[in-house]
Amino acid sequence: MRRALRVAEQALFVSSPNPRVGCVLVRDGRWLAEGSTQRAGGRHAEAQALHEAALQGVDVRGATAYVTLEPCSHTGRTPPCADALVAAGVARVVVGLRDPNPKVAGGGIERLRAAGIQVDVGLFAEDVLAQNPGFCARMTRGTPWLWLKSAASFDGRMALPDGRSQWITGDVARDDGHRWRARACMVLTGIGTILSDDPMLDVRAVETPRQPIRAVLDTQFVLGEQARIVNGDPVWIFTARPDAGKAARLAARNVRVIVLPPDERGALSLAALMRWLGDHEINEVHVEAGARLQGALVQAGLVDEWVAYLAPSVLGDGQGLAALPTPLAGLDQAYRYEFQDVLQLGRDMRLRLRDPAHWDALVEACGLKKG
Amino acid sequence: MRRALRVAEQALFVSSPNPRVGCVLVRDGRWLAEGSTQRAGGRHAEAQALHEAALQGVDVRGATAYVTLEPCSHTGRTPPCADALVAAGVARVVVGLRDPNPKVAGGGIERLRAAGIQVDVGLFAEDVLAQNPGFCARMTRGTPWLWLKSAASFDGRMALPDGRSQWITGDVARDDGHRWRARACMVLTGIGTILSDDPMLDVRAVETPRQPIRAVLDTQFVLGEQARIVNGDPVWIFTARPDAGKAARLAARNVRVIVLPPDERGALSLAALMRWLGDHEINEVHVEAGARLQGALVQAGLVDEWVAYLAPSVLGDGQGLAALPTPLAGLDQAYRYEFQDVLQLGRDMRLRLRDPAHWDALVEACGLKKG
Repeated sequence: MRRALRVAEQALFVSSPNPRVGCVLVRDGRWLAEGSTQRAGGRHAEAQALHEAALQGVDVRGATAYVTLEPCSHTGRTPPCADALVAAGVARVVVGLRDPNPKVAGGGIERLRAAGIQVDVGLFAEDVLAQNPGFCARMTRGTPWLWLKSAASFDGRMALPDGRSQWITGDVARDDGHRWRARACMVLTGIGTILSDDPMLDVRAVETPRQPIRAVLDTQFVLGEQARIVNGDPVWIFTARPDAGKAARLAARNVRVIVLPPDERGALSLAALMRWLGDHEINEVHVEAGARLQGALVQAGLVDEWVAYLAPSVLGDGQGLAALPTPLAGLDQAYRYEFQDVLQLGRDMRLRLRDPAHWDALVEACGLKKG
Repeated sequence: MRRALRVAEQALFVSSPNPRVGCVLVRDGRWLAEGSTQRAGGRHAEAQALHEAALQGVDVRGATAYVTLEPCSHTGRTPPCADALVAAGVARVVVGLRDPNPKVAGGGIERLRAAGIQVDVGLFAEDVLAQNPGFCARMTRGTPWLWLKSAASFDGRMALPDGRSQWITGDVARDDGHRWRARACMVLTGIGTILSDDPMLDVRAVETPRQPIRAVLDTQFVLGEQARIVNGDPVWIFTARPDAGKAARLAARNVRVIVLPPDERGALSLAALMRWLGDHEINEVHVEAGARLQGALVQAGLVDEWVAYLAPSVLGDGQGLAALPTPLAGLDQAYRYEFQDVLQLGRDMRLRLRDPAHWDALVEACGLKKG
């Protein structure tokens, strides 16, 4: 199963909106074949492993299949993997995590057992969840998994007071940041960042077969039509102010404008945004934004994780990580996360933090006990 | 020598203004005795190890002494250790670091060699330096080694905008902070912190045989005579404004008032402060202060290290780590350090950073090559 988890890593930048799954076929302790989820519409991990075995002329009858996620039992863009495993004559299937997709929900396991195949469930289940937080969040709570990516000096400044921010962290950290972009379904920023930095927000520093959708939160729809982000590749603009003419002009340049209801303060409703994204097959949202949008997401309780790069430098005054719409009334109201891991990248540090309540809820919704 | 370094750790809270030294006596691969530097005026490590051997009736003739720092050759409050090793009849001395004290400067090694003892120098020398940065800095550049200890949310806030800061980090981090206080010769803060938090700044969370001197930078000498820090134990006040009457009243309560010249902006000269401390046997200065003093020390180039505790929380607005007297003109002027290590303490992280130019200069001044 450890190998199946590693195989699933190959699908990290590839499989969305499908989960990243790995499948390893073994018989008598001997490796036979393996596969990971291909691009949407392509083979799932089990089908890919069976396909590889067939290509190599390997007989898989009587084999054990280690699959990180429960094989599917429904026909989507591809036929059910459970049926493929039955047809291939495997004797046993070891499943990491039961599929939280309500269309599957144990159906794959039942179908295998009905065909006389031995099925064991739960090996490294939490690791499978950690590999697919976005898919599991979307299936269980209806919204994506969202992380903030920030790059700051270690005194917590993302930019000088005049907005200059290039560059605070070094190349190695920036490349790592592109890996996080690449695994997300969507890279989201605020209109403030577009106006001040005019970024592309595409994945450049690492190879990827698929670019995430780039998106801008632009309540007043003030995006300049010459912004660099409007480069012909898909961009989504979320706004609370309809402007059919501008939207039509941008549509011709592959920009989709989505009008969402404003909240009680007249700002675009972030909760409505998250529900919309969940309804539109967005698993993971990578936010690279200014202090204002980051602070709004923090205060709305929508931040599941932080991927925070810290440079070993001091800037003094400047833009913080999060400008909260309503200041804290006391320290007991601080927004609390948990450190997950820390990694030195060149001269910088990467700290990962997670909202423990969000994670625990996800673990529970996926039928796992905590710990 | 690794054991001698560990033995020297026992002197961490004890030996100042003397260096922390460890000595292990070995013969034919067998441990005979060991000792570390005692309180000032007490035995040095070599004398302590010989004393322990004598107490146990162990014959040390022909032994090898592993000593982290070159044995002294001058008579201070105690007789020269080099003479004691000669008298004890050891056959070989392995020295970690040559003593940067100009009164020793190879004299101990010469005296041992003149007596026919084999002396080898340089084993783990940089580790010995890392154990005694303050002593070595004072001996070579005439000023103490200074670190800033900060406790902040991971968005870089040491307090809410109204100054509330208790508590951002947890118990484990706070206890660790007291260990850093305990190893320092002096705990320094600014008058702003005294006025807003009224702290004691003594070592409470860990056992220590010796309290560091507590000191306050108070340019205008506005310290309230009822401040909690004035508790009968030694306090030093550094000011630019003489007030003989107030100083005399405070002197009766064990407060020493030191008047230093103002700099060109009318603030107390931080460089003069550091020289004064170097002249008064202060090896290590632990600064726990507000953003203003920390920023002034950063900009004056006087920060050798940071011991930065980060809580996994977001506060949004609030007091930063460093308010620079003059804002940066550009990112290329950021104050740059190097991450030394990172440690999880309870739910918090401790990041240690060091000024690489200061460290390299210290390494060179102690006669070591870099790397």
